[in-house]
Amino acid sequence: MAIYFDNAATTKPSAAAVAAFTEALSLYGNPSSPHALGAEARRRLESARATLASLVGCKTEEFYFTASGTESDNSAIYGLWELRKRYGKRVILTDSEHPAVKEPCRRLEAQGAEVVYLPTRGGVIDTEFLKEAIKTPTALVCVMLANNETGAVYDIKAVRDIINAANSRALLHCDAVQGFMKAEGYKQALRQADSAAFSAHKLHGLRGVGGLMLKSNLHPPAFVVGGGQEKGMRSGTENLAAAVAFAAAATEYGKGAIEKVKEIRAYTEEKLRALDNIGFNVPPKHLEGILNISLRGIKSETALNCLSAQGIYISASSACSSKQAENTVLAAYGLEKADRECALRIGISPLNTKEEADALVAALEGARQRYGRI
Amino acid sequence: MAIYFDNAATTKPSAAAVAAFTEALSLYGNPSSPHALGAEARRRLESARATLASLVGCKTEEFYFTASGTESDNSAIYGLWELRKRYGKRVILTDSEHPAVKEPCRRLEAQGAEVVYLPTRGGVIDTEFLKEAIKTPTALVCVMLANNETGAVYDIKAVRDIINAANSRALLHCDAVQGFMKAEGYKQALRQADSAAFSAHKLHGLRGVGGLMLKSNLHPPAFVVGGGQEKGMRSGTENLAAAVAFAAAATEYGKGAIEKVKEIRAYTEEKLRALDNIGFNVPPKHLEGILNISLRGIKSETALNCLSAQGIYISASSACSSKQAENTVLAAYGLEKADRECALRIGISPLNTKEEADALVAALEGARQRYGRI
Repeated sequence: MAIYFDNAATTKPSAAAVAAFTEALSLYGNPSSPHALGAEARRRLESARATLASLVGCKTEEFYFTASGTESDNSAIYGLWELRKRYGKRVILTDSEHPAVKEPCRRLEAQGAEVVYLPTRGGVIDTEFLKEAIKTPTALVCVMLANNETGAVYDIKAVRDIINAANSRALLHCDAVQGFMKAEGYKQALRQADSAAFSAHKLHGLRGVGGLMLKSNLHPPAFVVGGGQEKGMRSGTENLAAAVAFAAAATEYGKGAIEKVKEIRAYTEEKLRALDNIGFNVPPKHLEGILNISLRGIKSETALNCLSAQGIYISASSACSSKQAENTVLAAYGLEKADRECALRIGISPLNTKEEADALVAALEGARQRYGRI
Repeated sequence: MAIYFDNAATTKPSAAAVAAFTEALSLYGNPSSPHALGAEARRRLESARATLASLVGCKTEEFYFTASGTESDNSAIYGLWELRKRYGKRVILTDSEHPAVKEPCRRLEAQGAEVVYLPTRGGVIDTEFLKEAIKTPTALVCVMLANNETGAVYDIKAVRDIINAANSRALLHCDAVQGFMKAEGYKQALRQADSAAFSAHKLHGLRGVGGLMLKSNLHPPAFVVGGGQEKGMRSGTENLAAAVAFAAAATEYGKGAIEKVKEIRAYTEEKLRALDNIGFNVPPKHLEGILNISLRGIKSETALNCLSAQGIYISASSACSSKQAENTVLAAYGLEKADRECALRIGISPLNTKEEADALVAALEGARQRYGRI
């Protein structure tokens, strides 16, 4: 039986999500088809949209379905840039954004964007830096709701206040892939953003569907173009079953998942704090579901492999940056090289148990004793 | 019980696809995660890729997973344009391409592209037109394998020969969303293309996954960027279950689906030919699964509604162009306005039966007798 603590990379689809998915598959009509089967599919899609918009805290018409969080980030960044590039060429993003944000911003350099990285040392936005940076006319500010490696929850309201105080017309994009339904006060935070990105598979939904929140006063050009689905904002046959499963998973997550995760987190952290020579890379405000530690004395990879062989799954960094040589997020956090090299990310979900946490902690200490070398 | 003849819009997921999907859901690890659960997911993803590449007739490394046929078209068009825009500014596409091809090509105009529409009157590429058009340095030629409204199968080999004969460096993109596994000799046709787009849900796979074939000598910039999945060509957590279901659906489709569809098509067409005052918008080379007719005497919409009320589902045009006022594809085909206004598209799948065809034909004639006005 697998012990899965890699829930920041992806989660196991919940029974509710799979049931909703399977049931919606029977509604196989194309939601854009002009017959009863299409109309019924359309109704179900709109119902899923309303559910998710309500959980996000936006108007129903401000929530668009996409195929992934990555696509939503790409779409928002390119779109908002088009709306403001004549106002300012600066693009400000934190130095710990996900590659789905970092890469499109880098792409904008070819169009004359000046990309500025906002420090997040210790898991906190450097507001003084932002106050200075925003004085230069800025098209776009990207600040994620919660970081995928340290779990840091960034202060979106503070960012909005700084933008407003500077009388800047900069638009604010928030990658909420990790923070949605999980960061404390996430609705209030998202209300500050002009756009936000969501993903179903981070909260026990299925892959193949993401969400994009876009304020109704904004009309950027679409990213994926074609048949004009999603009111022209995202073309491609609507993935009804995955959208319905997304709504079901998020709804279920709203029913006590946070409390469950908090409990397991506290339990795991307490057990880990009893170990010697361990660093806790825990920002002041953080997701309960992400616990980043430095298990000194054993390299991350060695620990991962040792645990994996026992059927216990965690990670060293985000799956999306696993191909990179250096962990830039933990460097931005301010972690020294020695502690970065033995960093481990424990991703907790409401499906985890205290027994699993016990096994995890024992395996970590066991791995260090057997294979530790640093 | 629904009688579903709208299989060119989307298809019912097959039992094999759903079974493969459900089974793969248990492999919920992130294929990019560095543990055993991730590695197993990765192996399954690569196995699905090999299966699909073999069915496409390309090398395994030339097949990339995307989220949809639309995304694949966007990705190929923008990418190939970048590779050839310094060679030529002309972009040639047929006048009956899907919006997923038409829209990105139009977008290129902002970058200086000169978009030229290649006539397909009667469902046949105007080769003389192409021979002239290609004399101007051309970045990209887009010709779909099979048209989604008339079912016309275009001669990709002839297009390639014309490009080569002109010593043009133009790249050739082929939207194979409708034609894959269905157009006669599709493998030989696809071998002529530099890139091609595929979609799972057109052949009883699930939505949320598409395919992109890209010749291994080409290295265009990616469209969706971020974590660098799919060897950097398409970022976003890999949708393993849908990819595995795509491979299962395509494999199953290869086992006699064509023969089954051919039989139902012949049967349906024979029954329809017995009706008075009906036009057959059937190109010389066509998919067996698309039968476009003009049921003179009743407007398309009226016929659709009448059939829909009886639980019989067909369409008037593509679902993706259902929001458009005018049917441009049938106009390009050369159909007069009167015949366009009463055009109906019957999309046949191997799941259809002769009994369903009987019911369809009876309902069509019944609708005309009851509601016909034109």
